[in-house]
Amino acid sequence: MTSAGPGMIALHSGYPAEELLPTRLVRTALVRAARTGTAVDRAPISGLPELRSWFAAELAPVGASAAAPPAADDVVITPGGQSALSSIFRALAVPGDAIVMESPTYWGAMAAARQAGLRIVPISRGAGAPAAADLDDALGASGARLFYAQPHFANPTGALWSSADRSAITAVLRARGAYLIEDDWAHDFGIEADVATLAADDADGHIVYVRSLTKSLSPAIRVAAVVARGPALARIQVDRTVDDLYVSGILQAAAVDVLTDPGWRSHLTRLRGSLRGRRDELARQVRGQLGADALELVPRGGLNLWVRAADGVDVADLARRSRAEGVLFSPGGDWFPAEPTGSFFRLNYSRARPELFEAAVATIAGLLP
Amino acid sequence: MTSAGPGMIALHSGYPAEELLPTRLVRTALVRAARTGTAVDRAPISGLPELRSWFAAELAPVGASAAAPPAADDVVITPGGQSALSSIFRALAVPGDAIVMESPTYWGAMAAARQAGLRIVPISRGAGAPAAADLDDALGASGARLFYAQPHFANPTGALWSSADRSAITAVLRARGAYLIEDDWAHDFGIEADVATLAADDADGHIVYVRSLTKSLSPAIRVAAVVARGPALARIQVDRTVDDLYVSGILQAAAVDVLTDPGWRSHLTRLRGSLRGRRDELARQVRGQLGADALELVPRGGLNLWVRAADGVDVADLARRSRAEGVLFSPGGDWFPAEPTGSFFRLNYSRARPELFEAAVATIAGLLP
Repeated sequence: MTSAGPGMIALHSGYPAEELLPTRLVRTALVRAARTGTAVDRAPISGLPELRSWFAAELAPVGASAAAPPAADDVVITPGGQSALSSIFRALAVPGDAIVMESPTYWGAMAAARQAGLRIVPISRGAGAPAAADLDDALGASGARLFYAQPHFANPTGALWSSADRSAITAVLRARGAYLIEDDWAHDFGIEADVATLAADDADGHIVYVRSLTKSLSPAIRVAAVVARGPALARIQVDRTVDDLYVSGILQAAAVDVLTDPGWRSHLTRLRGSLRGRRDELARQVRGQLGADALELVPRGGLNLWVRAADGVDVADLARRSRAEGVLFSPGGDWFPAEPTGSFFRLNYSRARPELFEAAVATIAGLLP
Repeated sequence: MTSAGPGMIALHSGYPAEELLPTRLVRTALVRAARTGTAVDRAPISGLPELRSWFAAELAPVGASAAAPPAADDVVITPGGQSALSSIFRALAVPGDAIVMESPTYWGAMAAARQAGLRIVPISRGAGAPAAADLDDALGASGARLFYAQPHFANPTGALWSSADRSAITAVLRARGAYLIEDDWAHDFGIEADVATLAADDADGHIVYVRSLTKSLSPAIRVAAVVARGPALARIQVDRTVDDLYVSGILQAAAVDVLTDPGWRSHLTRLRGSLRGRRDELARQVRGQLGADALELVPRGGLNLWVRAADGVDVADLARRSRAEGVLFSPGGDWFPAEPTGSFFRLNYSRARPELFEAAVATIAGLLP
């Protein structure tokens, strides 16, 4: 959470560098919105209708699907993905309830769940999805009705669920009557693969879907959406009202403006190329300097590499010593709900200049035993 | 919470009309901020330093005081007053704890407290403050460590604590080691009286202060501040991080720009005149058409009149029938933590055009028995 000072190489931040953002579109959209009613009007509690419609349309089923596409009314706008998760956990569970999560998983989701008084039941995932049988056991043993997951380019591992994973997991959830909270944090960060959301195929309303624009548009556009159906939707709407009332209209108007601008699609195409170049360069440096085994996976999207050090390496201490030499990264312990399964750390390739990756990895390599 | 359709007279809304906002300053500030780094940078978790400094300086003690003025580091920026209250309640209490509140009081505070699992212990207030002895009894009997109050132009009653009230209440809180959560919602809406915050005289760090800019600047500037000290501050900062991470930098930058513009002071002067005219006209209509007893108090600031109907009048039903005739207002029941002490309703004078007050009150009068 610390910002990088001058001369520091920031491989820890989850927030992409300005060159990866649609900066010109965002500035223009904000200036335009500043001149409209949204600069001085109160926004509707669930969000601007045109932004809700946009999020709903993004979840239209692809090809043959039993699912009815979500409507704008199924969308609730929130001030960012973190508050979306906080609201969902508060709305769909009560303190003391269990929630199943992949391990490792996003630290912010764990923090929000704990804040809501929930008990996290971890199931391990490797380079793909957790095993459906493990999910079934965890739901059965804990009584949890919620499963939080990042099926696409998971943070921190970069793992992606296959089609077979999706079917098996969905079948377990349906049989158990449990909700999947699908955190689509990396929707705009596909490199070889596009994100095909599970929510777009949700025929029975048991997926609660979260997508944030903060990392794709600008950290100043604190706007995310929750898409849900029926009673889950109603409870989330009540929580939003009580927690926050509504999200600034100007940020929502600027978001719609950027997302419906023809320049947004071309930005995404350029972004894909930039992320590929950055990912490949960092992976090359890690494998070259830390060994071929250091990377179990080169993710097909997202912003991070999940690096394994030799067993027994104290990665928290490594991160401290690395910081002292000007290289910032996230030690893996923060991403595990329980005891870490190894000495991992996360390197983010979206923030620092790629010309610095070689030197940064050399610094880390020099600190390893 | 419903918006007024065309032809409706909105005496229910808490959000001032555009003519009472510094609209030109807000638009200019947003356009300016859109061109700076704040449009594309991530803001610090606790807020922009210059905005935190501004809020801290606003609480500098007046005259002789034992209190050290708060520092910028004592300020946490939140996305609006409602989320400030939610964070404070979650941070300073655990589910099952009691919290003392004035009755009637702001419905949003009650909702946030209930959401946090707190038990509300009401103490009655009349046209001024609650009795210090009642507060002492309530804290003693319930074990509550928190007292939530709006000492200045309380919403909905408009009541104002006197100097004697302040001293007596502060002494009780100090003796009990309890926190006052001072909700300074109407700081910019003084008419005959300016707001002299209790927080500015807080010598021992037992006041947690909340001030929102949303109603004074623009509903699109979802920015508020919490000012606290010591362990209370630290716990609120942790909750904000988990719940929301940070507030959009562009909204914070625009807020600082407006608040430090020379036009802000002249806006406040004009606003005071407009509010006085609106309040006086609505009070005149209420007393003329509903009887001199309908108003216990003409508030010296704020945005609302608290009107008493004859005992036994069902004000919720009255509000529904009034809405059917095009006049919106808030029935009093929503503002009482427990059983209402009479048939009250709230009329807001900041939204509808004052030329319509006469007709609006005539509609209500025509529906009364």
